[in-house]
Amino acid sequence: MRRIAILGSTGSIGCQALDIIRALSNKFQVIGLAGGENLRLLEKQINEFQPVMFYCSGEPDFSYKGKFLPMEQMACQPEVDLVIIATSGKAGLGPALAALRAGKTVALANKEVLVMAGEIIIQEAKCHRAQILPVDSEHSAIWQCLRGEQSKPRRVFLTASGGPFYHFSQSQLSGVTVEQALCHPIWKMGNKVTIDSATLMNKGLEVIEAHWLFDIPFEEIEILIHPQCIVHSIVEFVDGSVKAQFSFPDMRLPIQYALCYPERLPNSKLPRLDLSEMRSLSFEPVDQSRFPCLRLALNAGRQGGTYPAVLCAADEVAVNLFLSHQIAFLDIAPLIGDALEQHQGISKPTLDEILQADVWAREYVERLFIRHPPFIPLPSRERLGEGG
Amino acid sequence: MRRIAILGSTGSIGCQALDIIRALSNKFQVIGLAGGENLRLLEKQINEFQPVMFYCSGEPDFSYKGKFLPMEQMACQPEVDLVIIATSGKAGLGPALAALRAGKTVALANKEVLVMAGEIIIQEAKCHRAQILPVDSEHSAIWQCLRGEQSKPRRVFLTASGGPFYHFSQSQLSGVTVEQALCHPIWKMGNKVTIDSATLMNKGLEVIEAHWLFDIPFEEIEILIHPQCIVHSIVEFVDGSVKAQFSFPDMRLPIQYALCYPERLPNSKLPRLDLSEMRSLSFEPVDQSRFPCLRLALNAGRQGGTYPAVLCAADEVAVNLFLSHQIAFLDIAPLIGDALEQHQGISKPTLDEILQADVWAREYVERLFIRHPPFIPLPSRERLGEGG
Repeated sequence: MRRIAILGSTGSIGCQALDIIRALSNKFQVIGLAGGENLRLLEKQINEFQPVMFYCSGEPDFSYKGKFLPMEQMACQPEVDLVIIATSGKAGLGPALAALRAGKTVALANKEVLVMAGEIIIQEAKCHRAQILPVDSEHSAIWQCLRGEQSKPRRVFLTASGGPFYHFSQSQLSGVTVEQALCHPIWKMGNKVTIDSATLMNKGLEVIEAHWLFDIPFEEIEILIHPQCIVHSIVEFVDGSVKAQFSFPDMRLPIQYALCYPERLPNSKLPRLDLSEMRSLSFEPVDQSRFPCLRLALNAGRQGGTYPAVLCAADEVAVNLFLSHQIAFLDIAPLIGDALEQHQGISKPTLDEILQADVWAREYVERLFIRHPPFIPLPSRERLGEGG
Repeated sequence: MRRIAILGSTGSIGCQALDIIRALSNKFQVIGLAGGENLRLLEKQINEFQPVMFYCSGEPDFSYKGKFLPMEQMACQPEVDLVIIATSGKAGLGPALAALRAGKTVALANKEVLVMAGEIIIQEAKCHRAQILPVDSEHSAIWQCLRGEQSKPRRVFLTASGGPFYHFSQSQLSGVTVEQALCHPIWKMGNKVTIDSATLMNKGLEVIEAHWLFDIPFEEIEILIHPQCIVHSIVEFVDGSVKAQFSFPDMRLPIQYALCYPERLPNSKLPRLDLSEMRSLSFEPVDQSRFPCLRLALNAGRQGGTYPAVLCAADEVAVNLFLSHQIAFLDIAPLIGDALEQHQGISKPTLDEILQADVWAREYVERLFIRHPPFIPLPSRERLGEGG
């Protein structure tokens, strides 16, 4: 029995992780559940899985016999084998560090943890011989392709659906509504990730995450648009051989792979890719010029230091402004771009410096929005649209 | 330094193996070379690589200081680490067995070895803890996908280019010339294998080979037509995840993989697949009805015993008759089909019984041809063409 704590159990990944645990109940025991603000769902999960520990932000309005414990403490309890970090934004950072320092295996679904503090996280994992298992479909694919290999890859290709607007013109993009942006053609995800997919920010964050997870230089990570979302990533080896991982696009597959690793287990609840029905897989190089968020992310990744933290924080604020109908879709990138431009970066930052950069960026974007509602000054937006 | 003996060094695979050894000369030492009838090429190879042992069928007409040693003896000399079996037809059977019994690693390019005597070969390999490394691109792909995996695959998909005639009608197929059949759209191979590719017999033999190499039941091996020849095979695991291996279609890649295994080494002489140029990969299920050789092979594989040996022998004779312009392309399958139908199969055969079945089938097909030149009786051909 693998004993599991899920941080962010009421989110999309958390619920799907519980689906896997439900289907393979003889393999796993839920030791801790930490939810966000959806207290009714958390209560339901707690009643079903009877964890030893639980947590929610704010006071729980229900009674439960288990121990109420903050996430950072929950993550490092001795009875936990594996911690699923399925929180969002910077919320996963502290618990991830606590888990790794306690030598726990961490199944990481919260991209920002590695994007914001990759160097520190990887350092701590090495230092405490703790494993980080990717949960994202792309990183799971790379991890599966690297399984059993002794040598590092020559290149890695992250695939991207392109999101709902990949073939939109600039003028079509300017009219995109929140409802349109929340309709991802393939993946069902939380709102923040869905918008990040539409701007391709998500793919940029994934490149940074892949850089840290697999110790691959940025220039050896490429992006291929692959609308069918069947090939989840591709790895090229030094001898010219290439491996790719395919599956039906369902997040429960990579979640199960991480939870069961190194075993592979049959699960009749999961959809199966019918390869004899597979007719055509298409690929094209990504066009960064129409998706400035991707370019901003790749630049911030290459700059390193506190820039990726600023990227994440600014993106979170900007996406929230878009989701609450306060800015247009095309205003997201300039807000983030301005924050990155104004930021005084620190290289080799401490965790405190990363968190300060996060706070600075949030305040900066909020101030910028208040000063210029509802639109960002055009020059900045145009500069970002020019490509390069 | 890995010390290598190449049996069949003057054939297509043998020459390409020497290309790899030439490019990675600090990794390999050629200990033995055995060629066929192309004495000039063998002499050239011997002068270049200076092997300790050599062999050719018949008396060598050149002088060389090395030891002249039959292939079965060469394969089990103590100074040999790895034996490349790149002979064709049943010629590889004895040397493969000798090598495995001596505990040598065998890189196997001679399909017939496993097709004719899979059960015996696998048994001997297990008994002497000798490794069989596949060289065929499809089997290398499966092997690479299985690397590091603990569980057996749920299904395996061998890809097939379809050969030059995959979309030909029955009447177009009836007019196919030797020259057309020798023009494979993608792969450069020896004449026999090229014709086997055109009839899809080659894919049938590969299914039988995969069955033995990876211990997979026939009903879990499928064939996908994939004209681009970039995806070399696909493996589906029990958890619904799928891995595929891609590369530029060049036999030197899987040959190098087998020779270097478990290492992967860069080799600037090898073509590299440009993934950013890859636009579309297409797949379709195979249509067995128009390619009776494939159906004959799959049936013979499932029947087992001496049937696969009869299949190989009858195919070899029939393909030679076609290559020497004595029968038509569409006469190949009925000749093989008649032999299989008339054969009195033996289950769990000894090596002698397998070799007797081989002799019987050769004589049977030759007699059949002499009795009915230049065409096989029509009813038999029509029966085979009906599908099912």
